[in-house]
Amino acid sequence: METEKKIIKNRLTQLRKKMKENGIDYYMIPTSDFHNSEYAADYFKAREYFCGFDGSNGTLVVSADEAGLWTDGRYFIQAENQLKGTGVTLYRMLDAGVPTIEEYLDSQMEQGNVLGFDGRVVSAVIGDSLAKKLKKTKTEFKIDKDLAQEVWSDRPKLPCHDIYVLSDELCGKSFKEKLVDVRKAMEENDTSIYFLSKLDDIMWLTNLRGNDVECNPVALSYAIITNDMFILFVQKEEVTDEVRAYCESNGIVLKDYEEYAEYMSEFVFTGNVLFDKRNTNYFTYKLITDKAESAGFKTVNIKDPTELMKAIKNDTELKNIREVYLRDSAALTEFIYWVKENAGKVPMTEYSAACKLDSMRAQLPGFIELSFPTISAYKANAAMMHYEATEDNCAEIGKDGMLLVDSGGTYMGGTTDVTRTIVIGEISDEIKHHYTATVIGMLQLANANFLEGCTGKNVDILARQPLWDLDIDYKCGTGHGIGYMLNVHEGPQNIRWRFVPGQNEAPLAPGMIVSDEPGVYIQDSHGIRIENIIEVVKGNLNGDGQFLHFEHLTYVPIDLDAIDTKYMQPKDIKALNDYHKKVYEKVSPLIQDENAKKWLKEATREI
Amino acid sequence: METEKKIIKNRLTQLRKKMKENGIDYYMIPTSDFHNSEYAADYFKAREYFCGFDGSNGTLVVSADEAGLWTDGRYFIQAENQLKGTGVTLYRMLDAGVPTIEEYLDSQMEQGNVLGFDGRVVSAVIGDSLAKKLKKTKTEFKIDKDLAQEVWSDRPKLPCHDIYVLSDELCGKSFKEKLVDVRKAMEENDTSIYFLSKLDDIMWLTNLRGNDVECNPVALSYAIITNDMFILFVQKEEVTDEVRAYCESNGIVLKDYEEYAEYMSEFVFTGNVLFDKRNTNYFTYKLITDKAESAGFKTVNIKDPTELMKAIKNDTELKNIREVYLRDSAALTEFIYWVKENAGKVPMTEYSAACKLDSMRAQLPGFIELSFPTISAYKANAAMMHYEATEDNCAEIGKDGMLLVDSGGTYMGGTTDVTRTIVIGEISDEIKHHYTATVIGMLQLANANFLEGCTGKNVDILARQPLWDLDIDYKCGTGHGIGYMLNVHEGPQNIRWRFVPGQNEAPLAPGMIVSDEPGVYIQDSHGIRIENIIEVVKGNLNGDGQFLHFEHLTYVPIDLDAIDTKYMQPKDIKALNDYHKKVYEKVSPLIQDENAKKWLKEATREI
Repeated sequence: METEKKIIKNRLTQLRKKMKENGIDYYMIPTSDFHNSEYAADYFKAREYFCGFDGSNGTLVVSADEAGLWTDGRYFIQAENQLKGTGVTLYRMLDAGVPTIEEYLDSQMEQGNVLGFDGRVVSAVIGDSLAKKLKKTKTEFKIDKDLAQEVWSDRPKLPCHDIYVLSDELCGKSFKEKLVDVRKAMEENDTSIYFLSKLDDIMWLTNLRGNDVECNPVALSYAIITNDMFILFVQKEEVTDEVRAYCESNGIVLKDYEEYAEYMSEFVFTGNVLFDKRNTNYFTYKLITDKAESAGFKTVNIKDPTELMKAIKNDTELKNIREVYLRDSAALTEFIYWVKENAGKVPMTEYSAACKLDSMRAQLPGFIELSFPTISAYKANAAMMHYEATEDNCAEIGKDGMLLVDSGGTYMGGTTDVTRTIVIGEISDEIKHHYTATVIGMLQLANANFLEGCTGKNVDILARQPLWDLDIDYKCGTGHGIGYMLNVHEGPQNIRWRFVPGQNEAPLAPGMIVSDEPGVYIQDSHGIRIENIIEVVKGNLNGDGQFLHFEHLTYVPIDLDAIDTKYMQPKDIKALNDYHKKVYEKVSPLIQDENAKKWLKEATREI
Repeated sequence: METEKKIIKNRLTQLRKKMKENGIDYYMIPTSDFHNSEYAADYFKAREYFCGFDGSNGTLVVSADEAGLWTDGRYFIQAENQLKGTGVTLYRMLDAGVPTIEEYLDSQMEQGNVLGFDGRVVSAVIGDSLAKKLKKTKTEFKIDKDLAQEVWSDRPKLPCHDIYVLSDELCGKSFKEKLVDVRKAMEENDTSIYFLSKLDDIMWLTNLRGNDVECNPVALSYAIITNDMFILFVQKEEVTDEVRAYCESNGIVLKDYEEYAEYMSEFVFTGNVLFDKRNTNYFTYKLITDKAESAGFKTVNIKDPTELMKAIKNDTELKNIREVYLRDSAALTEFIYWVKENAGKVPMTEYSAACKLDSMRAQLPGFIELSFPTISAYKANAAMMHYEATEDNCAEIGKDGMLLVDSGGTYMGGTTDVTRTIVIGEISDEIKHHYTATVIGMLQLANANFLEGCTGKNVDILARQPLWDLDIDYKCGTGHGIGYMLNVHEGPQNIRWRFVPGQNEAPLAPGMIVSDEPGVYIQDSHGIRIENIIEVVKGNLNGDGQFLHFEHLTYVPIDLDAIDTKYMQPKDIKALNDYHKKVYEKVSPLIQDENAKKWLKEATREI
């Protein structure tokens, strides 16, 4: 332990030396890759390297005399332990009196001081906000130095895995067709250059996939689109012959990922520039805005046009998604049967249960990877929304209570996400009340009929109402979009009642798929989440407008052991029975085991 | 008829002569008073004077060779008839290919042309938008000439009625206390001058009332607030001794309404200026912005701080409002009894029924005036949301169908607004279905439990859901705020699912009162609206936040003759029964007539 602390101190000393050599007074190390991806690979864990704290969220700021780590409430205890003895101060974000990083730097930095960071791992929004805040102290920025690289001798390599090509048949639309739509959007916005940095958008557009980000089938990449050129920056080691041939035949100019910075610096602007500040790193953002200004061209910062195109699934995608969701539903149904048959009888932990489910998914045709690390949380652990059981740190599943399992996979043909809370043994009446209300909310939203133009803000209350009626809220959104063989979280649509700045309130449109996941989280007691993925479809069109509704994609039984009809209206009971009838019809043909099938019949019985 | 057209032509000739004298090429006459009030007095009906069209919405544009009138779909037929033979062209707003006024002027006006209008009757938003649109043609504006005044020899006088003072006891908060809050808001916005033009805001702040706008108990006025001064511009003829004494003792400096323009022109800015562009006329707006700029001060255009203060009723106001609503509810209940007893038996028209109700309200203690002209619409007429029956043009009430009555009064102690649709005789099953769904929606919204921070956009769907489930929508908002002895429509809160630019999505806050009025409008068939006013009250506060809910202010029976329980869930039936129980408990003691009371017992029976 003591040695570890010494190692950290030593690393910070080396970093400070490099800072001095480079004329940097403050150096900031956040937690992100170059594309603000949901998961950062080991290559990007410089913050952990320099302070020892390994939570998923944290930013380290180092000066000659001080070092501070900012993290959020989920990690206060863990960070306190891991920082002990390193000399790094813990800044508890959002606690009273604790300065933000901006406020800290503003109060500490003196006129002419230099703030350094790797501009590729800081988002344009954060970098720009820092620049504005520190403007009055005339702080200089040095953003082209990744000092970690100079100190971290045994740094892991950048993730680097083969890229692969999806057939046009699988995607429903070819790269060339999509490119026509993108160029149309560029023209509509009076631009002739488009810088695209968001990995899943680049993958969607090119019909390529990769494996460089955990649970996201994406390759590290940048794209530059002009009226007559499409340049794709990827690691040259990732380019297979198949990919090379595909790119050649599609007019995709391949460049090495490593050359991106240099290429950008030399790139000559010949027109107005489109980009999305939300999805661009500060290094790229500065280059774009500075170059456009000096060349006398306009920058148009709008939401990536690819985002909405990607969100509205085409008919081929929808057809494949529906099939994939059925197979995935069947696997989860078999898993639930296995849990209910075996819990309390054979040794089972949260972790071993998750492994079982993961292995069942892995056997499904076209399985690529999990769409996110499976959440398997028993009893009170389920009250922690982002609980992650590990082999070394997980609860034994006993004879009572419930197991919450939130999981999904990416397959050839779609990405899934589903949550069920499984009754293991005895549960209280209060839990049944909460469970029943959650199910009512999930189905009430799924059964909504609404007018085109509605956003997630309009319909969110349908999921929340049964819980709000009990003075209970879940402190998260109700739903998010999901990619097609892509990231499990995507926009622009989402279902929530409050939108903070930066969150996008997009109308729900036919072809979008979205999660519907109300829940109850009672600290130290229990956690419930029921999550279906639903598809937006067209309903009647009349003088009042175009009506829309949802269809379920997920068909997995809802545990009747936790349902109490005394908390339900007839229409709620009907909604559950209707859903369960469809579950049996659609999923039972996919289940081989006769006992499981028999159980499913009973689990989907009319109540 | 022919003579009338000649008169119009003659007036236009005179107007064109004045335009020429003043170097004006195009002259615009909209329909508004100086404060963008909901109703314009006869003094402001210059548009009607110059073209003959007397609908509530229209703008006339006159050039040397042409004259055009813009109005909306409600008035196409009427305008066509009234404009015939006048030489004025009708521009049907929103019809395909029809230019907006901006587009028309942009295409017609040549470089250096002068556009004239009375800047006091054009809102800052419209004037500014015009100025931007016409910038490129370098059109000049002449906004200080009311040419109507120079032509219109027998113009009616400005409305001019005595102002009166409300006691602090009735208002719950004195002018001086309110002024402290307003000055605090000025300080928070770093301003030291505040121009307030909105009549109900000025009335609320000063605890004065007037009678210059139809159905709005307000006096024509402007207010200028500085850190040490409060200037109130009102017509000097309106100032009674009581008002003068009140103003003197409260430090309100009275100036004549007519002197406003001159005073503003000479007013020397000594600091940053607060104003609300939505509520300021273009003349004032230009003065404010030009003067601030030349004096080197900032203009802060934000929502009038008085708006939210006014919307959140204080305890005294709420206590009075609750009492007034009960008395008003009792009167409407007696009216409904009268209608149901007499319709089809004695001669009754939409108009005579409205007169009956108006006279019943007039007898209530503290009655001041109707809060808007009573809408009384029989059968298919009720499908027109803004239908207005007149003595000469109204339907006879027969033995079947329904009568929709939307009405309200302003009393010492509150302003009311309520709609009931009364069953006269036989109605179809379809109507019962629509009626029942409307009632379910009204009660579902009224019974909502929701978190602080919710806006009308979050909860609107609760009222609309039962109708959307039938693929039916009503093409208006669900609810609006209501004044305290003031205008029947006020902000900032409103309940709607869509917000167009300019509409304000304000969180619902305890103390706000808001209407809850879903409806069904089937052209040429029937119209249903059920409107209660509800008050936002605090519920439980727990770790999930502050919960809020509503309490009814309106207690009037809902016609059970149109309710079919087969369309209701048990909770909907319970909600209606619970409401009706309270109606009887609260309203029956206020009803003298024993027969009416007996009827009310039956009308509020449990179903």
